[in-house]
Amino acid sequence: MAGAVEKKLAELGVTLHTPATPVANYVGFVRTGNLLVVSGQVCFDPDGNLVAKGKLGADVSVEDGQKAARACAINLLAQIKAALGDLDKVQRVVRLGGFVNAVPSFLDGPKVLNGASDLMVMAFGDKGRHARTTVGVSVLPMDAAVEVEGIFEVA
Amino acid sequence: MAGAVEKKLAELGVTLHTPATPVANYVGFVRTGNLLVVSGQVCFDPDGNLVAKGKLGADVSVEDGQKAARACAINLLAQIKAALGDLDKVQRVVRLGGFVNAVPSFLDGPKVLNGASDLMVMAFGDKGRHARTTVGVSVLPMDAAVEVEGIFEVA
Amino acid sequence: MAGAVEKKLAELGVTLHTPATPVANYVGFVRTGNLLVVSGQVCFDPDGNLVAKGKLGADVSVEDGQKAARACAINLLAQIKAALGDLDKVQRVVRLGGFVNAVPSFLDGPKVLNGASDLMVMAFGDKGRHARTTVGVSVLPMDAAVEVEGIFEVA
Repeated sequence: MAGAVEKKLAELGVTLHTPATPVANYVGFVRTGNLLVVSGQVCFDPDGNLVAKGKLGADVSVEDGQKAARACAINLLAQIKAALGDLDKVQRVVRLGGFVNAVPSFLDGPKVLNGASDLMVMAFGDKGRHARTTVGVSVLPMDAAVEVEGIFEVA
Repeated sequence: MAGAVEKKLAELGVTLHTPATPVANYVGFVRTGNLLVVSGQVCFDPDGNLVAKGKLGADVSVEDGQKAARACAINLLAQIKAALGDLDKVQRVVRLGGFVNAVPSFLDGPKVLNGASDLMVMAFGDKGRHARTTVGVSVLPMDAAVEVEGIFEVA
Repeated sequence: MAGAVEKKLAELGVTLHTPATPVANYVGFVRTGNLLVVSGQVCFDPDGNLVAKGKLGADVSVEDGQKAARACAINLLAQIKAALGDLDKVQRVVRLGGFVNAVPSFLDGPKVLNGASDLMVMAFGDKGRHARTTVGVSVLPMDAAVEVEGIFEVA
């Protein structure tokens, strides 16, 4: 039984898969009080393949980087669903932390991260507007193009 | 009507401008409970020009990096004022996250970030002492030399 | 009088030293409500020497990186002890943020960070399972190989 947010996502063609369990001694999310802290998600698609691999400014275009950021955001939502059962329990997207796998001359990290931010607002409306930090890093796990972590206020 | 903190800043020659609205689907700050989470601020001056542009260890000196970090801190304060109306409502600067646009051989990130930390303590006194994480990143939005994000406990 | 967690650490051969006071205008930790936010810890050993110095993928092996991450985790625990007096007051390790000093081609950041995650679970059991974000950065303070920050839910 999908809630209103999940129905809206379905209209956008987004379905949430069960997130892969981390293979190490950490977990996908931790709830503390009304905050749900979600681990950094790389840009896996539902089949476990990276949506974009390599560095922005070299191997990956801004457009493909945006698709990767969107995939990270979808994976954050999949973690929330695993945590809460229902995305409608999200009261506010508090913060996204965006890490772009980038060559030292790539200046358009914020454009890339919009792929994640736009999805949050499409899913949650005004509750989806969040604080955000975007930086370019030297490398990401598995050479993923983008990684995004999140903090959510939940009911 | 400026509060005590803002008066102290004025004595230091620091005036807070109205922060620019982010041009994407994110916002400058989100409040959740007693925490105010502020988006990463790059080193813009009040006119919207970068105080320092390029990489520490190559284009930017430690001294100019410190000025840039101070500008990031001022922009964090401007966001807090936009959020709360009065900086006196800050109970504690909880955490600053500092990102230095740095070549791989630049080791003095903490010295650079002191430009932000010192301003917080000048503004808030002991309440301004915060947890801090400093890292060197491959690149920052618009080639800003420094970006700082913050979490604040507020009344 | 050491609590249960500290006794377990002693069995593993881990003793907690008094953490060095930061030399700048920031502090090792800030408590806000039930959250303890701990500053980024580099991989110092108890004598103040770096466990591993330089970049993963060049100067530092994955195995040495894991030892460095473990040292960062021990330093986080030392900060918690300084903050609370007793590690048994930790209700949950909420989040670790891991920064690996890495060349742009180094893809095994998560393996490195396991050195920190494993120690948390050894110390705290299931309460030690945390959300985690791992990224590769261009450089870290003093050329430390690894830096880890943490958020803890405390009694």
